[in-house]
Amino acid sequence: MTSPLTLVEAADLVSGELVGGDKGLFIDGVQTLAKASKHHASFLSNMKYKADLQSTQAGLVLLSEKSEIPADTSFAIIQLQDPYVGFTLLQRYFNPAPTSTGKIHDSVVMGASADIAPNVQIDAHVSIAKDVRIGADCIIGAGCVIEEGVTLGKGCLIHPRVTLARGTQLGHRVIIQAGAVIGSDGFGFAWTGDSFLKIPQVGRVIIEDDVEIGANTCIDRGAIDDTVIKAGAKLDNLIQVAHGVEIGYHSVIAGQAGIAGSTVIGNGCQMGAQSGVAGHLKLVDGTIVGAKAGVIGDTKEKGMISGFPAVPHRQWLRASGMFDRLPEIWKKIRKLSDGAE
Amino acid sequence: MTSPLTLVEAADLVSGELVGGDKGLFIDGVQTLAKASKHHASFLSNMKYKADLQSTQAGLVLLSEKSEIPADTSFAIIQLQDPYVGFTLLQRYFNPAPTSTGKIHDSVVMGASADIAPNVQIDAHVSIAKDVRIGADCIIGAGCVIEEGVTLGKGCLIHPRVTLARGTQLGHRVIIQAGAVIGSDGFGFAWTGDSFLKIPQVGRVIIEDDVEIGANTCIDRGAIDDTVIKAGAKLDNLIQVAHGVEIGYHSVIAGQAGIAGSTVIGNGCQMGAQSGVAGHLKLVDGTIVGAKAGVIGDTKEKGMISGFPAVPHRQWLRASGMFDRLPEIWKKIRKLSDGAE
Amino acid sequence: MTSPLTLVEAADLVSGELVGGDKGLFIDGVQTLAKASKHHASFLSNMKYKADLQSTQAGLVLLSEKSEIPADTSFAIIQLQDPYVGFTLLQRYFNPAPTSTGKIHDSVVMGASADIAPNVQIDAHVSIAKDVRIGADCIIGAGCVIEEGVTLGKGCLIHPRVTLARGTQLGHRVIIQAGAVIGSDGFGFAWTGDSFLKIPQVGRVIIEDDVEIGANTCIDRGAIDDTVIKAGAKLDNLIQVAHGVEIGYHSVIAGQAGIAGSTVIGNGCQMGAQSGVAGHLKLVDGTIVGAKAGVIGDTKEKGMISGFPAVPHRQWLRASGMFDRLPEIWKKIRKLSDGAE
Repeated sequence: MTSPLTLVEAADLVSGELVGGDKGLFIDGVQTLAKASKHHASFLSNMKYKADLQSTQAGLVLLSEKSEIPADTSFAIIQLQDPYVGFTLLQRYFNPAPTSTGKIHDSVVMGASADIAPNVQIDAHVSIAKDVRIGADCIIGAGCVIEEGVTLGKGCLIHPRVTLARGTQLGHRVIIQAGAVIGSDGFGFAWTGDSFLKIPQVGRVIIEDDVEIGANTCIDRGAIDDTVIKAGAKLDNLIQVAHGVEIGYHSVIAGQAGIAGSTVIGNGCQMGAQSGVAGHLKLVDGTIVGAKAGVIGDTKEKGMISGFPAVPHRQWLRASGMFDRLPEIWKKIRKLSDGAE
Repeated sequence: MTSPLTLVEAADLVSGELVGGDKGLFIDGVQTLAKASKHHASFLSNMKYKADLQSTQAGLVLLSEKSEIPADTSFAIIQLQDPYVGFTLLQRYFNPAPTSTGKIHDSVVMGASADIAPNVQIDAHVSIAKDVRIGADCIIGAGCVIEEGVTLGKGCLIHPRVTLARGTQLGHRVIIQAGAVIGSDGFGFAWTGDSFLKIPQVGRVIIEDDVEIGANTCIDRGAIDDTVIKAGAKLDNLIQVAHGVEIGYHSVIAGQAGIAGSTVIGNGCQMGAQSGVAGHLKLVDGTIVGAKAGVIGDTKEKGMISGFPAVPHRQWLRASGMFDRLPEIWKKIRKLSDGAE
Repeated sequence: MTSPLTLVEAADLVSGELVGGDKGLFIDGVQTLAKASKHHASFLSNMKYKADLQSTQAGLVLLSEKSEIPADTSFAIIQLQDPYVGFTLLQRYFNPAPTSTGKIHDSVVMGASADIAPNVQIDAHVSIAKDVRIGADCIIGAGCVIEEGVTLGKGCLIHPRVTLARGTQLGHRVIIQAGAVIGSDGFGFAWTGDSFLKIPQVGRVIIEDDVEIGANTCIDRGAIDDTVIKAGAKLDNLIQVAHGVEIGYHSVIAGQAGIAGSTVIGNGCQMGAQSGVAGHLKLVDGTIVGAKAGVIGDTKEKGMISGFPAVPHRQWLRASGMFDRLPEIWKKIRKLSDGAE
């Protein structure tokens, strides 16, 4: 679809410096070092794959400015600051994001007072309740359900079978993968002595610009205050975000992580896969929660924490490395105690 | 929508005692202490927010009978046994649960012999198979799929895109959040020596009165016996309930918890977020499983267990507090051993 | 529906040896020992239920060849190599898998160039994009969304509300439970210094013959290479499979497990519930990952690993058994140190 790139054009696109290579060569796609062929660009970013550099058939390889240039290579080289960003730019060039067809399928059920901007694509079996506003150039996949009072900014891409519950507000260019549920009721009940009374969940979910939400992830509406996902945050699949949570700018949450109610995750934070943060906490900007960690207290300074209860990562790493020795420790202590006492 | 309350009416509604305050003041909503304004009721339940009491703009605050009455407050006070219950009652007054419109959308596909009671609302693109019975006043959200032989009691609220698989039985006033799957096949295969043979999953899912099920939670049908969720139990989002599990009355399961096959969770139990219970176990009434805990044995008495393998909570807490010291322990032992041996 | 079996027919079907019993008795179903009545077959496989053998009302019980034959039983006995396989065979006889009605519902939206084989059942509100191929005898449940270029082999059973995203390839007899998302975008972003750039995810998901995928499980498409689930693998509910993962033949993954990007799980592996494997790893054939384990390194030989970071299972078991003693260890060490120094 997109036209091939010469090596010079590729170097331009990624703001890198072309080293050697056949000026007549054109690149028509991107591949891993192991699978690339002559007209592919490839890249070395994760050093785990360094050995593949010897055997790659790629016509072009992106390397870090800090890497030494291998001698006698069969491929051209572009040196640049960050080969991963360069790879991304090439990949985006060859695989442009989908664009709206501007067609609304006949089977779409449209509520009263819906305000649909020009060039919006809505696929089959979508249900749109009243007072919904959808910005220009949005794509709404098949089987989505958009409840009353929901607003979408421009250029959102909502994959199939997503639920946007009542009052949910999306900014511009939000991407939501299939099956996600945005705005489900938070989990709130008051025990009366003989049963639980459901607490109405009246807050909304606010998702700002350029956020991406993964498949089958759930973001509960606030109990009273809104649940807020700030601009640029990225959430993977099967994540649980409870009521009243706030996730800061450009924070990244990996799959199956969970965040309990009213917790505030700062800006530029990371949460590893299957990690969890308890409720009513504050993680400062730049907090990194290790995979599977369980955080039960506020963080005071940026940096990585791990384990459950979470402690500074290095501390956890050292202690974990000793865990296996517990039987040996016990044995030694018994010996020492018996001798000493 | 609902009319405002005077302070006296509010005190009546929550069965509390009004202390001071402007008799002419009316309350038209509920807010947190931090965000409340003059016509809001607020409450103090989690002591983490006690400082907000000084600065709140709320016209009315619900306080525990056990709290001391602050002097010179700008707000009226209602004292009552449980401010959280009081808040819930006010919130429910101002935000009544949705009620059925009684309309069945034209796009609904209705199977043979469907028995739909009066005043049932069924939204767009719902699919109802044969022999389904739906009780009065139910609301079925858009995109739900209700398979053959499913029964719903009265007043159920099924949010969009829920699957109720063949034979599932719901009691009265059951609430199911969007995307949940009730009655998927249990995970059962027999290894024949060269491949797995799928074991037909012929049990059903039985969900009793007043149960709430969270978004994208999965409850598998029984392999032979039914999977049963007893009256008043509450399940959060993204929970896995395997085949043949039984969850007792008023038990509460937090997000991303998982329960393996044939396990029986007693009455009034709690499971923390991301916790798990192995298969074929029995947890007695009142068992509390800590967040992230992994339970691999029956419990014999009520109380909290934590860790993996789970042990009594206090024991886990003490041991966890020592975990970081493992390197130090190792060092000391080495020193002692070298000296002693 | 299916006709009852005589004891001789039942023994034939499960390739077992009939011991005693009333030749005139017929069996019309299968039940647990505890719930069986006269015309039921039952079985003893999990020794936890051995006591039920005394009181069972079953007319027939399947027992292992290695079990001793109880004296004076009221039931007939079939001895066979694996009672669990025998139970499965009987259960499959009495509960045959659903077969296609061959009907395509009027509400199905069919894309251009769809190639639908004979005897395919497609239920209500399904959306099929262009260039989709569906093999003979498939059943597609209500509300499924099948995107452009998807291929299904013969005899697949796709439960309701499943998403098969663009380019996904299914083999024959694949079963997918409700709500699963196959082919969502992998979680890939490059940080440019001030924001994340989405990396186009251009790989596909390839699911081979006889794979089963659980409810609300998510399998991401590859970033560049495909994500591959090999023949006979079985995945439970709410599992996260990241981009570029490969899962080997007949591997079994339990509920809520997660596998990070580009990791290769070998053949005949098992992953316990809530376990996780980090990215870019290789687990050799026959690796067994314990429940809740976190694997952060390759495995070199088959066998079970547990804990986080995962270590050989026995090692973890011994160390875990000592965990509670940490406070005691600390106390003893303090005593020894104070005495010794």
